[in-house]
Amino acid sequence: MTNIPYKIYLEESEMPRQWQNIRAFMKELPDPMLNPATMKPCTAEDLAPVFCDKLIEQELNDIDPYIDIPQPVLDFYHMYRPSPLVRAYNLERELNTPAHIYYKFEGNNTSGSHKLNSAVPQVYYAKEQGITQVTTETGAGQWGTAMAMACGFFKMDLTVYMVKVSAEQKPYRKAIMETYGAKVIPSPSNTTEVGRKILSQYPETGGSLGCAISEAVEKARQNDNCRYVLGSVLNHVTLHQSIIGLETQIALDKYGIQPDMIIGCAGGGSNLAGLITPFICQRLQGKNNIRFIAVEPASCPSLTRGRYAYDFGDTGRTTPLLKMYTLGSGFIPSPNHAGGLRYHGMNPILSKLYHDGYLEARAVEQSKVFAAAQTFIRAEGTLPAPESCHALKVAMDEAIRCRETGEAKTILFGLTGTGYFDLAAYQAFNEGKMTDYIPTDADLQPGFASLPQV
Amino acid sequence: MTNIPYKIYLEESEMPRQWQNIRAFMKELPDPMLNPATMKPCTAEDLAPVFCDKLIEQELNDIDPYIDIPQPVLDFYHMYRPSPLVRAYNLERELNTPAHIYYKFEGNNTSGSHKLNSAVPQVYYAKEQGITQVTTETGAGQWGTAMAMACGFFKMDLTVYMVKVSAEQKPYRKAIMETYGAKVIPSPSNTTEVGRKILSQYPETGGSLGCAISEAVEKARQNDNCRYVLGSVLNHVTLHQSIIGLETQIALDKYGIQPDMIIGCAGGGSNLAGLITPFICQRLQGKNNIRFIAVEPASCPSLTRGRYAYDFGDTGRTTPLLKMYTLGSGFIPSPNHAGGLRYHGMNPILSKLYHDGYLEARAVEQSKVFAAAQTFIRAEGTLPAPESCHALKVAMDEAIRCRETGEAKTILFGLTGTGYFDLAAYQAFNEGKMTDYIPTDADLQPGFASLPQV
Repeated sequence: MTNIPYKIYLEESEMPRQWQNIRAFMKELPDPMLNPATMKPCTAEDLAPVFCDKLIEQELNDIDPYIDIPQPVLDFYHMYRPSPLVRAYNLERELNTPAHIYYKFEGNNTSGSHKLNSAVPQVYYAKEQGITQVTTETGAGQWGTAMAMACGFFKMDLTVYMVKVSAEQKPYRKAIMETYGAKVIPSPSNTTEVGRKILSQYPETGGSLGCAISEAVEKARQNDNCRYVLGSVLNHVTLHQSIIGLETQIALDKYGIQPDMIIGCAGGGSNLAGLITPFICQRLQGKNNIRFIAVEPASCPSLTRGRYAYDFGDTGRTTPLLKMYTLGSGFIPSPNHAGGLRYHGMNPILSKLYHDGYLEARAVEQSKVFAAAQTFIRAEGTLPAPESCHALKVAMDEAIRCRETGEAKTILFGLTGTGYFDLAAYQAFNEGKMTDYIPTDADLQPGFASLPQV
Repeated sequence: MTNIPYKIYLEESEMPRQWQNIRAFMKELPDPMLNPATMKPCTAEDLAPVFCDKLIEQELNDIDPYIDIPQPVLDFYHMYRPSPLVRAYNLERELNTPAHIYYKFEGNNTSGSHKLNSAVPQVYYAKEQGITQVTTETGAGQWGTAMAMACGFFKMDLTVYMVKVSAEQKPYRKAIMETYGAKVIPSPSNTTEVGRKILSQYPETGGSLGCAISEAVEKARQNDNCRYVLGSVLNHVTLHQSIIGLETQIALDKYGIQPDMIIGCAGGGSNLAGLITPFICQRLQGKNNIRFIAVEPASCPSLTRGRYAYDFGDTGRTTPLLKMYTLGSGFIPSPNHAGGLRYHGMNPILSKLYHDGYLEARAVEQSKVFAAAQTFIRAEGTLPAPESCHALKVAMDEAIRCRETGEAKTILFGLTGTGYFDLAAYQAFNEGKMTDYIPTDADLQPGFASLPQV
């Protein structure tokens, strides 16, 4: 364990050329996605008008343990991957802990997060199928930017429905997407039926992610050469994100490092699922005893306080039903909630792993998250996204526990993105204006009441 | 030349442990810095009230070819360095050129540029001397952010005088600096005599970089435990930036790559000087025949149209006199000028190399720069700072020339920073609102008239 550098980069020749499919390693699969019209498992035909064929194949694939990454996707991955696996020596010194802390940093690409890992293959497969346009939605803009980058590279038409209030508050996020050639439409808009309907009812609305999703899906359905793409939650997104964990595993193996625990923030869950993929697959085969910890905000506690039930993936209640830990599609996070991780549900694979006891979950309050982040930022130099700070908060708690017990545990966490686009939250923290919110059981009732009867 | 990866990262053990001092390799040194009060060469004593001792020693050192990088500086460098040397395969394909294009990307750290390379040692040396506070100025915020990161790490008090109009237009840049613990004061302020004087004369002023420098220097002079730090132009900054070129040289040597030309943008010049350091030192010894090209905006053409003369380093005319190519400290770039590279002068080392014929210079118009950037961005996925786009414009011109001549030249350029903080300029370009400005000879006269009589 000596001479481990600050950052481990893989050589290009060492990089993974396949994604890993967790579902092929699960003894018991998550319950299938249901078509809400029939209440029967979704078929490829059900999904074909919305998603492109190859992604549907991946979505439903629970057989193949590994799936080849196409060469054009590797050509793009090689421009920004491998991401560094960082040994947090300076943070360890600051915390005076015997623990060894590692983090995998996904923020060093222009989109600023791990989302790009799935945007690239999604656009590539659409292009390969002869699709000429794709649509998607974006809130804060990270997924929209990732899609704009992928579409700029593959020369594909992209329409991004951006939540109107975000488009107004973050004009530069819109400018980045446009620089890559994307068309950005503030949502609700008059380009879709659902948008026109909402605008006529609420002409002053700032929009919502649920509405933007509905517009993007409707737009994709209008045109046979157009498909919709989604950045989280689904199985095929989890598959693509396995690149994070695979690179991490190769990097650790090079230096003979075995993590004792792996920690990640969980909103939709695709980043955490991707980070843990190779390790949890080993665990499912009885080959390791690593602890896996999902960290979520106390204000949006889908794993720690949600129900394991079938629910819609979107607030507009238009998607197939997913079996997952959920607060109900009617749950709305408190307005003082900073950053992402505000999704009502959770990746169905992670939900199943949690349900079966392979995954732990912890909910943390945002003011404590930002206080930990301040220490991290000054010691390690990198400004992370608030989402990522949830993971580092728990990693630091564990490292501090090691200081108390004297154990030299190896702690790995995922640092999913840059904080450049969340400075309003940092500013609120710096100025002492950040508050916490923990919903009461009564606060959660309306969300649970919105769960469909299955 | 086969099997060159998309990105070359050095192993930590391969990284430079010394900076290289160009001046020790020059047959003829640049003319010395003059004290404007005496018109004699500046001594260490002249500079001691403003700069810390070790930096003055480096500033005046024209003997030692290599200078050790202190271990605490390496501890910080290792968190964000090496920066990647990227082979632009996708850009080459897009341009259909036989040229081999490489760029060294310095934007993957939170400050967003190469400036951090000098901020870290400057803060370290101040701390080592027992200094407890440092002051500096910042315009757009890259240098201020780099200083905030370095001071956060070394636990040093930092006061940043930020041009008031920038502080108001870029509140999040202020928030980043504050997150690292810096105190940010919009300039002009009532914390200094010069600030109070300007405020009483022009209460509505948005401030200027010249004024912010004057405030930061005055603040440093007020207190014996305080020193001022500067991010460009000076010899010690050039020394620290040599890390860029040294890493590049090691990476190229690993794969047996010999560049035919090295291209960099030049504002104050420290980035370009740093990039070319080991290569120009070889050239000065007759060991290579590389072409070195400085690229500057047509609207601020200090090398291509300036005078080689002694001039003040700041618009406030308070600094020592530097012999350099200059448009005169009274020169003010046109308001339509996007991004940085708006400095009236040029690094004295580069000025001397240009004067002696070792360096070429080219001036380019910004609308053409952004048009080239659009192609680069979509092919290579990375959004660069407008400054950096000046270098890529000329690199792409040279690559297109290779397409015409059939020559497979090896072109290396410096991509100094991220474009995250310059999206207003990209937006103007996307919306067709960007204009060019080439000063007439008459336009340059007031600047030249401001040159001191030496």
